[in-house]
Formats: sequence, C-alpha cells, structure tokens
Amino acid sequence: MSINEKILLASRPQGMPEKSNFSIEEEPLPVPQAGECLVRTLYLSVDPYIRGRLSETKSYAEPYKIGEVIKSGAIGQVMESTDPEFKQGDIVAGVWGWQRYAAVNTSTLRTIDPDLAPISTSLGVLGMTGLTAYFGLLDIGQPKEGETVVVSGAAGAVGMVVGQIAKLKGARVVGIAGSDEKNKYLKQQLGFDEALNYRTEPDLKAALEKACPNGVDVYFDNVGGEVSDAVISLINKNARIPICGQIALYNLKKPDQGPRIQSAILTNTALMKGFLVGDYSKDYPKAMTELAKWVADGRVQYAENIVEGFENTIEAFLGLFSGDNLGKQLVKVSEISK
Amino acid sequence: MSINEKILLASRPQGMPEKSNFSIEEEPLPVPQAGECLVRTLYLSVDPYIRGRLSETKSYAEPYKIGEVIKSGAIGQVMESTDPEFKQGDIVAGVWGWQRYAAVNTSTLRTIDPDLAPISTSLGVLGMTGLTAYFGLLDIGQPKEGETVVVSGAAGAVGMVVGQIAKLKGARVVGIAGSDEKNKYLKQQLGFDEALNYRTEPDLKAALEKACPNGVDVYFDNVGGEVSDAVISLINKNARIPICGQIALYNLKKPDQGPRIQSAILTNTALMKGFLVGDYSKDYPKAMTELAKWVADGRVQYAENIVEGFENTIEAFLGLFSGDNLGKQLVKVSEISK
Repeated sequence: MSINEKILLASRPQGMPEKSNFSIEEEPLPVPQAGECLVRTLYLSVDPYIRGRLSETKSYAEPYKIGEVIKSGAIGQVMESTDPEFKQGDIVAGVWGWQRYAAVNTSTLRTIDPDLAPISTSLGVLGMTGLTAYFGLLDIGQPKEGETVVVSGAAGAVGMVVGQIAKLKGARVVGIAGSDEKNKYLKQQLGFDEALNYRTEPDLKAALEKACPNGVDVYFDNVGGEVSDAVISLINKNARIPICGQIALYNLKKPDQGPRIQSAILTNTALMKGFLVGDYSKDYPKAMTELAKWVADGRVQYAENIVEGFENTIEAFLGLFSGDNLGKQLVKVSEISK
Repeated sequence: MSINEKILLASRPQGMPEKSNFSIEEEPLPVPQAGECLVRTLYLSVDPYIRGRLSETKSYAEPYKIGEVIKSGAIGQVMESTDPEFKQGDIVAGVWGWQRYAAVNTSTLRTIDPDLAPISTSLGVLGMTGLTAYFGLLDIGQPKEGETVVVSGAAGAVGMVVGQIAKLKGARVVGIAGSDEKNKYLKQQLGFDEALNYRTEPDLKAALEKACPNGVDVYFDNVGGEVSDAVISLINKNARIPICGQIALYNLKKPDQGPRIQSAILTNTALMKGFLVGDYSKDYPKAMTELAKWVADGRVQYAENIVEGFENTIEAFLGLFSGDNLGKQLVKVSEISK
C-alpha cells in the first residue's frame, strides 16, 4: 500500500463526539526529511484525554486545530530512516497519532525492544497510562499500609494499575467501575478487595461505606461527577485525592453542578491535586524500571482491549465514553514485518 | 468579684446560631488544684471556627458538649498559682474560653510579655490568626514574586495578614470583603492592590478578571460558596488553593451546591489543601519570630475590633456571621491589675 490514510478533526463536538466530527483523508506516502523516519503504524492509542483536545476551551493540552491529524500515542515500524540511530525494521513509539504512516522527527521517538514485553504495552502499562497511575498514586496519593484506596474508572488502563500498585503498598483497595463483569475481573484477577458497579448500585454512598469500613484515605479520581461526590463524602483526616481524569464530565454541554467539596477538604485537612504525567518526565526512567519489574513478576497485570483495523479507530474512541473498554483501548493497524 | 460567670452551650443551632443556643451560669470562683493557676480573663477571642464546634457533625475539632463552656483562646492574669513558673500578676494566654475566671492547667499556658506588644495581639496577629495566615499562605500558597494572590474574607483577622505577607513576598494582592469601608482600609492602609466588595459587585467574576489580568496563582479561601466559585474559575496553571475557612457555609442547613471544581483543578494541575494551624505547631517559634519582626517594623499591620464587657460575648460572636468585624474580633473582659 503506498497511500497514507489519516483521521482529521473535521468539526468540534458539542457534547458527545460523533463520527461526523472526524474526516478520513488519503494522501501519498510522506517522504521523510533530514532527521525524520518514515514509520508504518502498528498500534495507535485512543484515550479519554483526547476528548479535551477536540474542544477549543482551555485545557491542559493544546486543542487540535480543525483539519489537523488527531495526535496520540502510537507504535510503528521504521520503513525509511535518515537518522543512523534508527534502522529500517526497528520498532518505535511516538505520538504521530491516527494515521497509517507518518514522517516523524526522530527526536520524538524511542526504540522498543519487542523481546522484553509485548510491544503494545509501550502504550499502556509500560507507557503513559502506567506512568500516570504510578506517579498520581505514589507521588500524590502516597498510600500507606492498611489505608483504604478508592479508585474510580477502576477497570480502565490507568485505574487497574492504580489498584494493583496500591495493593503492592499494602492498602485495602476498592474499585468503582461500570459493569459486573469488569468488577469480577478486578476482584478475581487483580486482587481488588471490593469493586462496586456505579451503574447498578442503588445507593453508591452506602455501598462505599460498607466497602470502606475505615473510611477513604486515598481517592484516585478518573471520572468526577456523582461518583466522586459519594467518595469525597467519606474521606478521612489527611486524605489525598489525585485528580487524573473527569470522564463523566468531558461531554457535558454546560457546567457540572454538585455539592461543593471544600468543607470536606477543610474539615479533613485533605489534599486534592490535579496532575499530568508529563510533569514527572524526569523521573520516567526510575518509574519504568519499577513498573517493568512488577509486570515481569506478574505483580502488576494489565488488560488490553484491541480493536483490529485502522478503519475502526473512531468507534474505538467513542466507545471509551460508553464504558466498553476493559483496560487499555488500542487499535491494531498492521503487523510487524520480519 | 468572687463569682465566676461562664457561657455554656445550651442547645445546638440549626443554621444561624442564636442567643438562645447559649446560657450564662454563675458559680463560685474555682480553686486551683496542683499544677493549675487561677486566672482572671482580660480578653477572650470569638472566632468563626467555633461555629463548627457547636454542631454535632464531624469537623476538625471536637464538638462542644451540651452544658460545656465555650472554649476559645483567652488572655488572663494569674491570681493564684501552684506552679513556681507562673507568678501572681503574670499575663498568660491559653484556651479556657468564655468565662471570667478559670483554673487552668499550667502546661496549657504561655506567658506574655506586655512590654513587647499589646497583649491582645497574642490572640490575633501574634497568635492563632497570624500563624494561620502565615502557614496557610507560605506553606501551601507559596506565593512568588509577580504572582497574583486573591484572599477572601480579606478584612478578617486571617485575611488581612495573608494579604500583607503576600505583598511582602512581591505578589499582586486582591482582597474580597463585604463593605466598601473595609476595602478602602485594605487598599489605603494595608497596601492591597485591589479590593472587591462581593455584596455589591454585580458580576464578581468579571470584576475579578479585571483585578487579576494575569489570572490567579494563589487563592487563600476563608469563605467558600459563590465567591470561591468565581475565583476558582480564574485560576492559572499550577495554582495553589489553601482552604482555611468556609464561613459562607457554616450556617447552611443543607449541603451547599455549586459548580464542581475538579475540572478546574485537573486542567490547571492545581493543588487544593485544607489545613489547621495546629498541624504546624513545631514551627510556631520560627513563625512567631518572623511575624513579630514584621509587626514591629510596621510591615504587617493589624486591626482589632474590641467589644467591651463579658456580657457582650455572644453578640460579638454572632456578629462574625454578618461581617461586622474588621480584623480580629475580641471581647475585653477586665483590666490588667498592676
């Protein structure tokens, strides 16, 4: 195939994104310039944070421009290189996003060793999502032995790593996710102490009180909204609340209303902190070493939800907001060439 | 006078406290036991945090029991002592609260030197309120030169010290208070860059945007509610929000609703932290030395609103919630004996 296909932002969504907010465009294969590689995409990543960048409003990442390729994490294989550090056939990770081929500046690429772990993990547990869990939980959450950690979006790529690291640290771990099947996985496969289904619990706060008899010391928040209201009403003295995501709110058309939380923060002398994994970039190597060891030992397991085919990228992204995915959502675009 | 009078909690207020929630009781002068002093109250302190302790609900300090004396900061003069460290006539500060006389364990007392500063400052700028401002602003807020600091409850005992310390650190300081007279004082007397009247501003957010052209880096929150909604909508990347008080909410009968703030915390990777001055007790000496120096230099000024007469204590307390006080609210109970 000598034609590139790429997915562009066609219009900004109001509320829930739709297929019509994107367009697919064909173009000739790009030609790598000095300092670039031509890569063929093997896997691409679809992530909740991309929703924020579809809007024009201020966020922590630059909004995509209309007509711009949706940039996200991707793994590819080098087809042509102008840089002696990268050879044809190498497996690389970068952020060229939703396209079949890309000419990428090699300064933004890192080489992946496919013998160390499945290459797809470089987008998940051994990539941004694993690092997000690691730093948010350990730097802000700081769980101690015997404390109770609650994580929302617990069956997502970040949440399941959060829960497992919290278990490694000796905490009681309670997950909140959107299906009984996910919760069974969290408890039986990943060792969560409890897992609650926010869609079917008639009284989430009461269920949380039962699941957290000693209150909540750390709340790792991926979702926001009413789930968070319930958890925050149960925090303990000196609780820590890393804010990682607010997926429940990303598609709202108007500001979200709920009980103000400052009284709970004050009376419990609690800490709430929003964070971005990129704030910790200088500590990536140490974190990656530790994560890779836990994964190799089987102490941190991961799940991937892999959709086959570039043409299914947009649906895979939209599925994030209906809670379809267990673990890291990826799109497999092509096979490694030997 | 050889009769003690004390103010007790008679019933728990629902919403705004009323005089009928308190009772005044007479009793014979207490007799100091081993390790105690008998003190005669000179000044007593009325503070917003006392409101929380009138209710039975979980708070950061123990609720008062029905029939218990309202404990708060107080300054007194030693009448009798069983402890050689404290002599008759010494001026002491402690927390025996709303009573004319008390037998107090000397381990809870500290001696005040009346030649160093007016003794009433031991309850204010050189006491808990000054220390609260100092630690909340400098440890959590951490204002840097050129940043913008917004403080609500700016004309209260804590708020006015916060603003002045922020000025000392080179920040632009915007206060929010409840009268034009207070705001004139904040700007003309204390050097605040801007001061806004939340009661009369037709659009507080628009007024704040104008007063904070570079956004808000630190929001020192004493009040909560809609004032805080407006400020939080303007925070900058990496903003810090020390939560010191929520006086707007203390007398609400049902949970307070407003826009959820987690998205602002996340997209700005901001930090919000509730705190209690007592968490910093090991650092009091260093802080007191620095505060005393600033006060002696005139770089930190203070205001006191002194009501005369023990019998006016309850009204002075209730006045805190109508925003009557400029600076530290005290009750003067008796004169120093020479």
